[in-house]
Amino acid sequence: QGTRDHPPAQAALRDRLLAAVVACFKRHGAAAIDTPVLELRETLTGKYGEEAKLIYELQDQGGELLALRYDLTVPFARYLAMNKITNMKRYHVAKVYRRDNPATTRGRYREFYQCDFDIAGQFDPMIPDAECLKIVHEILSDLQLGDFLIKVNDRRVLNGVFAVCGIPESKFITTCSTVDKLDKMPWEDVKNEMVGEKGLSPEAADHIGEYVQLHGGLDLIERLLQDPKLSQNKLAKEGLGDMKLLFEYLTLFGITGKISFDLSLARGLDYYTGVIFEAVLLQQEDNHVEESVSVGSVAGGGRYDGLVGMFDPKGRKVPCVGVSIGIERIFSILEQRVKVSGEKLRTTETQVLVATPQKHLLAARLKLISELWDAGIKAEMFYKKDPKLLKQLQYCEDMGIPLAAIVGEQELTDGVVKLRDVTTRQEVRMSFLHQISNVLPKI
Amino acid sequence: QGTRDHPPAQAALRDRLLAAVVACFKRHGAAAIDTPVLELRETLTGKYGEEAKLIYELQDQGGELLALRYDLTVPFARYLAMNKITNMKRYHVAKVYRRDNPATTRGRYREFYQCDFDIAGQFDPMIPDAECLKIVHEILSDLQLGDFLIKVNDRRVLNGVFAVCGIPESKFITTCSTVDKLDKMPWEDVKNEMVGEKGLSPEAADHIGEYVQLHGGLDLIERLLQDPKLSQNKLAKEGLGDMKLLFEYLTLFGITGKISFDLSLARGLDYYTGVIFEAVLLQQEDNHVEESVSVGSVAGGGRYDGLVGMFDPKGRKVPCVGVSIGIERIFSILEQRVKVSGEKLRTTETQVLVATPQKHLLAARLKLISELWDAGIKAEMFYKKDPKLLKQLQYCEDMGIPLAAIVGEQELTDGVVKLRDVTTRQEVRMSFLHQISNVLPKI
Repeated sequence: QGTRDHPPAQAALRDRLLAAVVACFKRHGAAAIDTPVLELRETLTGKYGEEAKLIYELQDQGGELLALRYDLTVPFARYLAMNKITNMKRYHVAKVYRRDNPATTRGRYREFYQCDFDIAGQFDPMIPDAECLKIVHEILSDLQLGDFLIKVNDRRVLNGVFAVCGIPESKFITTCSTVDKLDKMPWEDVKNEMVGEKGLSPEAADHIGEYVQLHGGLDLIERLLQDPKLSQNKLAKEGLGDMKLLFEYLTLFGITGKISFDLSLARGLDYYTGVIFEAVLLQQEDNHVEESVSVGSVAGGGRYDGLVGMFDPKGRKVPCVGVSIGIERIFSILEQRVKVSGEKLRTTETQVLVATPQKHLLAARLKLISELWDAGIKAEMFYKKDPKLLKQLQYCEDMGIPLAAIVGEQELTDGVVKLRDVTTRQEVRMSFLHQISNVLPKI
Repeated sequence: QGTRDHPPAQAALRDRLLAAVVACFKRHGAAAIDTPVLELRETLTGKYGEEAKLIYELQDQGGELLALRYDLTVPFARYLAMNKITNMKRYHVAKVYRRDNPATTRGRYREFYQCDFDIAGQFDPMIPDAECLKIVHEILSDLQLGDFLIKVNDRRVLNGVFAVCGIPESKFITTCSTVDKLDKMPWEDVKNEMVGEKGLSPEAADHIGEYVQLHGGLDLIERLLQDPKLSQNKLAKEGLGDMKLLFEYLTLFGITGKISFDLSLARGLDYYTGVIFEAVLLQQEDNHVEESVSVGSVAGGGRYDGLVGMFDPKGRKVPCVGVSIGIERIFSILEQRVKVSGEKLRTTETQVLVATPQKHLLAARLKLISELWDAGIKAEMFYKKDPKLLKQLQYCEDMGIPLAAIVGEQELTDGVVKLRDVTTRQEVRMSFLHQISNVLPKI
């Protein structure tokens, strides 16, 4: 339940998708690392807040207590701390595991791929952060998923807003998770949750509402920097200053057209400390209305400067910022699109089918195909001694194999092979077999 | 314990290795499938004989009882049966899990990659089997691992030998596993185990010994087909007949030079029913003496015609033959070789470092690198506002980045970029930035 086999058509589509993502990560100079699927249970403990109950644990069969990794970020932080690495740009494409209810949301499974790119190290502010956003922009553009929007916010701005609205620090995280629902429900419902469940005063909630419903670009940042209350808050001022810098860099990258500074963006995970972001696809029919319910976010990430320190005995921090591409959702969308278009995806890359039109020519096929393989050509043949030519050609059409290399008795005598274009049915004779045609046994 | 992180240098080597193996599988027209790491416990039960104790089981946290996959063959058989597929050529490259003692053998881990290629379907005898051997030959040749030998045998021949030596059928499997040790210990020790532990008579053991110490080619097959006892045994005769056919096909593939019909090859797993094979590397120093203790087999496989039927409610069989490449051992060998040679493997593919020689040129770097990324060029830059040129060039040398694209104040004024070959230190000026040089902010 919640895991699945990937038959060839899916596996081929997925491979193409992953290849595009990895190509982008490599284009940005990232190195690959791999970490085990099994982590010590204690490594994962206390990193995911409420979501911890979704961690798969292994049976105690003697030895260490183990669990399946829940994401790739915590193992990366553990890896950096364990190896005392303070500077690294890495990508990691691998499966993670969650004991989630797989039926509730589309494209959500218990075993799924994550594609992560992270930059660890102490650098000048917002340069690596801007690169992460550039990567999201490149990948979503490359994959031609349609129009998209990358929402950006900063945890410090959000916390500053809560502070100036009179929320005690102890309620920041829980208020944050309520704010995060603004993309799924109207402000009135969010406010009710704040007041009813989270115990904020209606005035404080309204005050928060004035801020978190704002979104815009550099102009909004400038305005908030002048805001009489926010500008007095140290955290908010820092966050807004960095946000301004970020937008300057994004302007140089030429991608601000698809970026929105959105104060309602909060992101669920506890470990974010600065910039946070999330990309959503926009519904094409309804003219730029977000399709957040049916598709949800297709990429997200942010800055987590405290996580590595949690694994270091001396608590030494390594600042990190990273992005995770929601490959499973993107895959669902592309799969759906292929289904609708009726397009038939090839599951193999075979270039030539080696075929024979008469009986007793297996030896010729074996000899020819072996030469093709040795020359690096992707070739197949039927595993039958005497297959019918029609069936062999039909197979080419079914599988999208563009060429058939046909060796019949006449070709064998002439020392040639007939190369047939499966679509146009044009044939050319090529000398190929003249050294071997005389020495072949009849089998 | 027994799992490990793969830092960039290892991950890069592994990626290259896996790419070569996958390229061969695709060349032979295989489609990729993927199955979950988690399987139902009952799927794995009763498939691995004594090795079953090495299966990792997940804790019962409610829901199905799960285990981590132990190999890729049983999930493949389960996949075929579940989807009622009777005909398929697939490859699968993925990690498997075994609660083995990781310290005992070199290159043996609890989490490791398997690279499997299998052909399922009812075909004319030995054509797919021959292709599996061709694949082993291609991969080991491609990877330039040095001289190798592929040992081939057939379970039916082995069982026939046991039968004519008077061994009761109930002792076939246990005798088989003793014979399998002939590559690690001398005949006398194998005989002692047969007599002492397995309870065979010394005469029967000696009789078996006469057969299983034989190895050769087509000549040996012909001789055994004339053997007065073996030729009377139905199983042995069938096996030898197919072995002869196999060698005919391998001759057409031109690879018999590295194939040995070896009656001592038995292979551990229960599920093989026909041809079995195993590839070993030969030690170069000692003139073709097998290095089986330190390296062991680097590929193996065989025919398993009964496994799919175990998953079908009606027991419908799908004949299968497959090969598994021992990628971890090959990886250890290549890693060792890289270490000895002192060769430095690149961990990234970065082509250009975008560098600046003076201060306040971050905007120029951001603009230029963004153009390079958009053009598909693999480029990096320092995440500092004002890095020193020397440090930037030093980084190129350390990381093996071949080119530096340098933008200084002069270049900016002239609307060019200086492209520097890091090794030869030659520089050329190229116009690149002339549209943007006048509009860049100083940051």
